[in-house]
Amino acid sequence: MKKKVVVALGHRALGTTFPEQQKAVKASAKILADLVEEGCQLIITHSNAPQVGMIHTALNEFAKFHETYGAPMSICSAMSQGYIGYDLQNSLRTELLNRGIYKTVTTVITQVTVDPYDESFYHPVKAIGRYLTAEEAHEEELKGNYVIEEPGKGFRRIVASPKPLDIVELDAINTLSDAGHIVIACGGGGIPVLKQGSTLKGAGAVIEKDLVSGRLADLTDADVLMILTNEDYVCIHYDTDTPLALDHMTPEEALAHIENDEFGKNKMLPKIEASLHFVSQKPGRKAIITSIDRAKDAYLGKTGTVISK
Amino acid sequence: MKKKVVVALGHRALGTTFPEQQKAVKASAKILADLVEEGCQLIITHSNAPQVGMIHTALNEFAKFHETYGAPMSICSAMSQGYIGYDLQNSLRTELLNRGIYKTVTTVITQVTVDPYDESFYHPVKAIGRYLTAEEAHEEELKGNYVIEEPGKGFRRIVASPKPLDIVELDAINTLSDAGHIVIACGGGGIPVLKQGSTLKGAGAVIEKDLVSGRLADLTDADVLMILTNEDYVCIHYDTDTPLALDHMTPEEALAHIENDEFGKNKMLPKIEASLHFVSQKPGRKAIITSIDRAKDAYLGKTGTVISK
Repeated sequence: MKKKVVVALGHRALGTTFPEQQKAVKASAKILADLVEEGCQLIITHSNAPQVGMIHTALNEFAKFHETYGAPMSICSAMSQGYIGYDLQNSLRTELLNRGIYKTVTTVITQVTVDPYDESFYHPVKAIGRYLTAEEAHEEELKGNYVIEEPGKGFRRIVASPKPLDIVELDAINTLSDAGHIVIACGGGGIPVLKQGSTLKGAGAVIEKDLVSGRLADLTDADVLMILTNEDYVCIHYDTDTPLALDHMTPEEALAHIENDEFGKNKMLPKIEASLHFVSQKPGRKAIITSIDRAKDAYLGKTGTVISK
Repeated sequence: MKKKVVVALGHRALGTTFPEQQKAVKASAKILADLVEEGCQLIITHSNAPQVGMIHTALNEFAKFHETYGAPMSICSAMSQGYIGYDLQNSLRTELLNRGIYKTVTTVITQVTVDPYDESFYHPVKAIGRYLTAEEAHEEELKGNYVIEEPGKGFRRIVASPKPLDIVELDAINTLSDAGHIVIACGGGGIPVLKQGSTLKGAGAVIEKDLVSGRLADLTDADVLMILTNEDYVCIHYDTDTPLALDHMTPEEALAHIENDEFGKNKMLPKIEASLHFVSQKPGRKAIITSIDRAKDAYLGKTGTVISK
């Protein structure tokens, strides 16, 4: 019996530059193909920070220089989904064919709604683009954008990182997955859009891709959510001399660790929150956080941190 | 009984700049929604010339300036599919909702194979990017790229425009369409890829989108192919004082006009060739070439040039 598995790929699965990504996705394709061979019906999502940053910077620097129109974040996000999706579907198709598996791998351009009153819009935190001069920073502020100063380095534009609500193209993702296709969706956290009546307006924001993976796994009614990162286990007391790797947490235990601030600063928090969201909606669900290299072992229960009731 | 209709949108349906496109797709969405209301099961494809040109130029100028990696054509094509697909699916969803129709509109990132021995690779014709200096043109040639000189204007890089063969993600397009979704696919002619064993290698080329629309209509077994352009009818003797608008051609008549070079230089040739390809594969098929503004009237048989047996 096939298990529906949502896999979230991070920066390490994709690399940064064009040639780096092409190489990285080949390695990632092997790991994903291993999961397919284990009987997983995959829905894949991925980060896009360096890619969308590169696209945004290049298009907007070019626009400034040639005095033409700049590219809004939502459009850059859509471009990054096309770009990363193409590389991923291309590599995974090949890897599967090499193993005698014929399966269509398809990227669905995905919009994700966010709340215009999400508090992150009042406290943006995600830096995008290159360092700006004081004058450029002032220009950005005049346009209504937020800018922070990084002492000694310059200024950077920052955008909001609101929580994901609905996945607009969910029906298409489910239709493809139910028909046995491998789907790549919600890339880079999805294109952030605000619902205004019947229209969806692109938002100047970047949705946290870990949180979207939890939402995607929930809304596609997956059996397992796998968040693949750099470390085999989630640790508590991470910043101390005696970090403790966890092989299992109940939602209650995870919440207690969050409340006691025991995960420290190792960027695991959104991954744990996504896992909690997913496993809390329905009994029998399992979230796994582990390193990308150990994905298959983690799926087979040999490593990784499992969050389940 | 619903008819499966492949619609090919040209430059007029999309505009050139970011704000132009946003406005143009809103108008195009109304035309597409009219067809949905007439009972069409739509599969949409579109051109991407100004968009992919802008992306390619911006990314490669930026790369040159910062001495980093340039973006291959295939990646720029993937980005343009994400960008245009997002704007189109977003606008069409809203237009349908405004009419009380709930339908998911989904962009599928699509690769299309081309023949490495396609003769167009030896005679590239499609100009991409900005005008180059003689020195830059020489650099391009050293990299193995083709360059032409436009007297008085400068040099431009030119790429091949090979014929489309297979649509790699065809299964996904059919799965979605059969389930009643509206699909946007093969944008900009598809991402051109060369089959090398089990791998698909991105090609430095631009596939003619009209030809892909004929292939897409054939391979999805559509009932109707609609190629929407600037003129209500295909004319013969177009370049003369007495052009003659045609309301119907059989494939035999169309071929005779082509042989006698009667269509002149009004860019209708690839549209007619795509129509011929589509209607020749199976009886009962109909291709329509007309202006985007008259799409509904043409579908109802009131205007446009029909090509059918």
